[in-house]
Amino acid sequence: MSKVRVGVAGYGVIGQRLADGVALQGDMELVGIADIAPTLSIRALKEKGMPYDLYLVDGADKSKFDELGIPVAGSFEDLLDKVDIMLDSSPGGVGAKNKELYVKKGVKAIFQGGEDNSVADVFFHGYANYEKGVGVDYLKLTSCNTTGLIRSVDCLDKAYGIEKVAITIIRRVADPGDYHRGLTNALKIDKAPSHQAVDLMTIMPHIHATGILVHTPVTHGHIITVVATGKKKITKEMALEAFKKHDRIRIVRIADGFLGNASLFRYARDLGNPRGDMYEIAIWEESIVESGDDIMYAINIPQEAVTIPETIDGIRAACKLQLTSEEATVLTNEYLGLGKWK
Amino acid sequence: MSKVRVGVAGYGVIGQRLADGVALQGDMELVGIADIAPTLSIRALKEKGMPYDLYLVDGADKSKFDELGIPVAGSFEDLLDKVDIMLDSSPGGVGAKNKELYVKKGVKAIFQGGEDNSVADVFFHGYANYEKGVGVDYLKLTSCNTTGLIRSVDCLDKAYGIEKVAITIIRRVADPGDYHRGLTNALKIDKAPSHQAVDLMTIMPHIHATGILVHTPVTHGHIITVVATGKKKITKEMALEAFKKHDRIRIVRIADGFLGNASLFRYARDLGNPRGDMYEIAIWEESIVESGDDIMYAINIPQEAVTIPETIDGIRAACKLQLTSEEATVLTNEYLGLGKWK
Amino acid sequence: MSKVRVGVAGYGVIGQRLADGVALQGDMELVGIADIAPTLSIRALKEKGMPYDLYLVDGADKSKFDELGIPVAGSFEDLLDKVDIMLDSSPGGVGAKNKELYVKKGVKAIFQGGEDNSVADVFFHGYANYEKGVGVDYLKLTSCNTTGLIRSVDCLDKAYGIEKVAITIIRRVADPGDYHRGLTNALKIDKAPSHQAVDLMTIMPHIHATGILVHTPVTHGHIITVVATGKKKITKEMALEAFKKHDRIRIVRIADGFLGNASLFRYARDLGNPRGDMYEIAIWEESIVESGDDIMYAINIPQEAVTIPETIDGIRAACKLQLTSEEATVLTNEYLGLGKWK
Amino acid sequence: MSKVRVGVAGYGVIGQRLADGVALQGDMELVGIADIAPTLSIRALKEKGMPYDLYLVDGADKSKFDELGIPVAGSFEDLLDKVDIMLDSSPGGVGAKNKELYVKKGVKAIFQGGEDNSVADVFFHGYANYEKGVGVDYLKLTSCNTTGLIRSVDCLDKAYGIEKVAITIIRRVADPGDYHRGLTNALKIDKAPSHQAVDLMTIMPHIHATGILVHTPVTHGHIITVVATGKKKITKEMALEAFKKHDRIRIVRIADGFLGNASLFRYARDLGNPRGDMYEIAIWEESIVESGDDIMYAINIPQEAVTIPETIDGIRAACKLQLTSEEATVLTNEYLGLGKWK
Repeated sequence: MSKVRVGVAGYGVIGQRLADGVALQGDMELVGIADIAPTLSIRALKEKGMPYDLYLVDGADKSKFDELGIPVAGSFEDLLDKVDIMLDSSPGGVGAKNKELYVKKGVKAIFQGGEDNSVADVFFHGYANYEKGVGVDYLKLTSCNTTGLIRSVDCLDKAYGIEKVAITIIRRVADPGDYHRGLTNALKIDKAPSHQAVDLMTIMPHIHATGILVHTPVTHGHIITVVATGKKKITKEMALEAFKKHDRIRIVRIADGFLGNASLFRYARDLGNPRGDMYEIAIWEESIVESGDDIMYAINIPQEAVTIPETIDGIRAACKLQLTSEEATVLTNEYLGLGKWK
Repeated sequence: MSKVRVGVAGYGVIGQRLADGVALQGDMELVGIADIAPTLSIRALKEKGMPYDLYLVDGADKSKFDELGIPVAGSFEDLLDKVDIMLDSSPGGVGAKNKELYVKKGVKAIFQGGEDNSVADVFFHGYANYEKGVGVDYLKLTSCNTTGLIRSVDCLDKAYGIEKVAITIIRRVADPGDYHRGLTNALKIDKAPSHQAVDLMTIMPHIHATGILVHTPVTHGHIITVVATGKKKITKEMALEAFKKHDRIRIVRIADGFLGNASLFRYARDLGNPRGDMYEIAIWEESIVESGDDIMYAINIPQEAVTIPETIDGIRAACKLQLTSEEATVLTNEYLGLGKWK
Repeated sequence: MSKVRVGVAGYGVIGQRLADGVALQGDMELVGIADIAPTLSIRALKEKGMPYDLYLVDGADKSKFDELGIPVAGSFEDLLDKVDIMLDSSPGGVGAKNKELYVKKGVKAIFQGGEDNSVADVFFHGYANYEKGVGVDYLKLTSCNTTGLIRSVDCLDKAYGIEKVAITIIRRVADPGDYHRGLTNALKIDKAPSHQAVDLMTIMPHIHATGILVHTPVTHGHIITVVATGKKKITKEMALEAFKKHDRIRIVRIADGFLGNASLFRYARDLGNPRGDMYEIAIWEESIVESGDDIMYAINIPQEAVTIPETIDGIRAACKLQLTSEEATVLTNEYLGLGKWK
Repeated sequence: MSKVRVGVAGYGVIGQRLADGVALQGDMELVGIADIAPTLSIRALKEKGMPYDLYLVDGADKSKFDELGIPVAGSFEDLLDKVDIMLDSSPGGVGAKNKELYVKKGVKAIFQGGEDNSVADVFFHGYANYEKGVGVDYLKLTSCNTTGLIRSVDCLDKAYGIEKVAITIIRRVADPGDYHRGLTNALKIDKAPSHQAVDLMTIMPHIHATGILVHTPVTHGHIITVVATGKKKITKEMALEAFKKHDRIRIVRIADGFLGNASLFRYARDLGNPRGDMYEIAIWEESIVESGDDIMYAINIPQEAVTIPETIDGIRAACKLQLTSEEATVLTNEYLGLGKWK
């Protein structure tokens, strides 16, 4: 079978990681990436020797790329002519505009969380509702927090049945290197319920969810606490057992030195992962406590990379490479090296 | 009736505020404060013209105070001879040593949260277990987070009955001006359950509590989210109604500009409150959401000043000034100006 | 002599402090303040019992103030009819628009640093070029960093003569409570030379200045290092001697506990200064070092309050209350209590 | 010629990077690394498949490594028996103890900046005093800030002659992942002159140096501003020309998106550099300004990796692989890929 041909629109924080993730899939071909300006990410691509072909979207000034000696492979439409599916990680709102081109060219697409739900036919998560995305042309991925949160809730739900969750999202406010947003010596609270709780209910309509989100002045790793009500009592041991089987969840321990989100970032850097990225969410073993019949735990969400596996699952669904979540996620995980640490 | 004579040991972050709070009580007399070194707080006291008499604890080098022209009123024992009760806000562990002197001198005392529970006869909260402190010689106050948390839980408990709470504490890691501790671009998680949940159960044994604590790199105002299970369903309206009646709880709105803990600190500064302090906890109206039959909400805890009112309640209990929480808290609140904003 | 009647436009971070500072001047009358919306600062004014009359600028929705029970004394023009001079601390750009009204009403005005230089006849500093502001209708104050920097450079210049300065500004990025700007785990560098160096040369044209500015993620207190070249060698002792005589400069010591900007903020809070403000810049004694014939030192700039004294000096100049800097600053300092700590 | 056999003691922030850097040198062999406990870095080494052999220092509990399935190649003495030179990046003070073993075993060693100067025969910098290290048994590297600072000053000195520098160090307070130290919403100033200025004079005794150091709450990248006095006037163009030729200095531009230290960290991550490391210091083109006859500029110091190249130069000197700085640094740079971005 020939490989699925994939393009990436928007080579920013997410786009770079999508390109790298797709390039690792044995049954996919990364055709190229598209962007509009010689950003630092594009300059880094150049310095690395252009491992990916670069296409320019409408409005790009090619002379600026020429000045810097950055080779250009063609226009955005050129790229669309060569791919089966686009991963659109353009800035919020641009994806909706791009979609017109995708429709015109008959190209499938997967949009990221910043885009409006209406851009897609299905709001997608690789584990929780894979089957709804099979053969669908336009998918939208859940956002980073929602993706990681659902991993853990779906894990417990499949094992024991979940009825209700109440979450507290302790959110990093900016990515490393962001200068366009920030928070200094302040926590900021959003109107409840947080969109992540609402989104969870869209993906998993049989579960009630609500939650409060607080922004904190750090740059890597959201922490979410979850109070989950099961169909029956879930003990700490039961929760641990389920989490440990999941290839996109790492159980870590404070006692081993994983003191917080910064330890996980450091660990991923020390692993030699490109950019110090981590695809897995982490759950602290010592955070899992029973609250009467409810179970409570804390997750770390590596916001820059966490959606990559589920987006690749989305390619599998949209292009009907696999028909079930089990088959699809096993493959994605294998190519990304997930679960091999166990 | 003659005024209760009060002394303060340890003129640091808490001690300064205790002294100021006692000085405002019409039925109490602040006899003086005791410390060991000419800290910045003592230098500021001097620059303000010594509104409070200073006594030196054992080990202090009086010549250092003399050099700076800081008048000394006497020794720690001299202070103990003049007071009925001591508020001990010494560094953790020192209070236990001081207690020997208090016992010897027949002086009552109230210790702060940093001290071990064993130092006191009763672990005390002005609303939740006032009656247990009446006439007792040695009380220990709940810590800042626990004090504020219990205010809100006790408020709902008295109105509707509470069975269970699951809390997430988003903790400020240092006070403004602290250089001996800090956290930089990191969240830090503690082993669950947090001591605040455990302490709540000590004070309110009829309620089950658990929780997770995450340290964040900010200096003013913890935020706690609470998922509370009532004896019956508590709606948002019911919760709001109860909270609004409480003189130590402010209901604030994101829509009005209270975007987070930093807005509350700024507001307290703009109010002209000494040091920009606030005795009240704040609850964001837009944070209150129903989670099935549970109610969820977020509190702001001004960590430097929140325990002052309950400590003063403790004086009233220990010295039998009032026999019930209702009578005591009304007086404390009146002298501190609490509730008059309504 | 009748008091100079003063109004304040824009009751934000600076406006509140200008109002408080003017209210302390024995020879001035604060007529009122003007703003456009019921911000947190206006709500705090209400909660404090309206110590200052509030006037509404064009575009304000009076019904919103009525709903909150905030009394309104009249319109902006009503205020202008009652004053001799306006202190304009409106958001940048608004002052230029307001000026049309000031001209029409024949009212003098002093603008803050955010406004364009062209709005004023003279760019003003109370010590360095007071005489240029005497009798002038429209002055613009130097910004917070420039005001504090010039205090120290003018101090050395008057004592020993200064030829050249090279400065490094380590800037706080936001004020406490700011949510509209921030920086998280990042330093940000601006194109050199910084505007503060350029502004210094405008005020003190006989001195050459250049410098580099770096933003840091903190909320109180810029630190500036200065490398100053004197007309002759200035020793550490000479610099100290000059600085110590200045009523708006505090010499502080690391050894005493002043470890950084946060210690100074804490000290000002402990002093009981409203909002924890400090009008004085601080210079660390242990920072003063000789670099060959140059002298190097570090200043702390309390950004919220540092321009208040020089703005009040501006009133004295514009309204010809005093004809020289010496006479004017002595009075401003006396009313603000500056220098009495010595 | 056989390869120089190198070992690394202390596999922490610096040790990991030393091992990686040595492993890239074509004329060196990394024999193994030594540590005392199964830290996160050692666990990451295990998860990566043990690319380096692990030896245990005295006091290590081998059973803890066995439990985790981490293979151990031998004892510290076993390692010493196999190497020509040790790179000692143990915690401060431990290196001095280790030295006794090095002497006993006849092994050369290079210590990092945290160790006392007395541990070594020569305080070393690969460019500024390479010749002093040739054939010497015990070298100590300059600290991260000093290493980067000297690179730039030596560069100007060799090109034009430098007489004097006055520096301001805006220091990151902790490394990513550090939980044992931190600073929250505060700048902290150290007693001047900073040790970096003093160290510069030790390495380059013909230059006078002084400076002020301010700690800031960020985790990657010190920024240093330098005011340098040349033997003759150095213009901006002259400085740029010299800097651009240096293989361990990158000239970057704010206009290109390098807004601060966080942009450089992000760029290094996007380059795919292991751990997002960067060996080069960066100098912002827009920061270079003339201050009369002096030249002023700002450097970014990537604290985790900056000393690696100069330490490897040190191996070349101590083992007499090359006799001059020119020959040695060219080789180190080639193996590390430095300068190839030009």
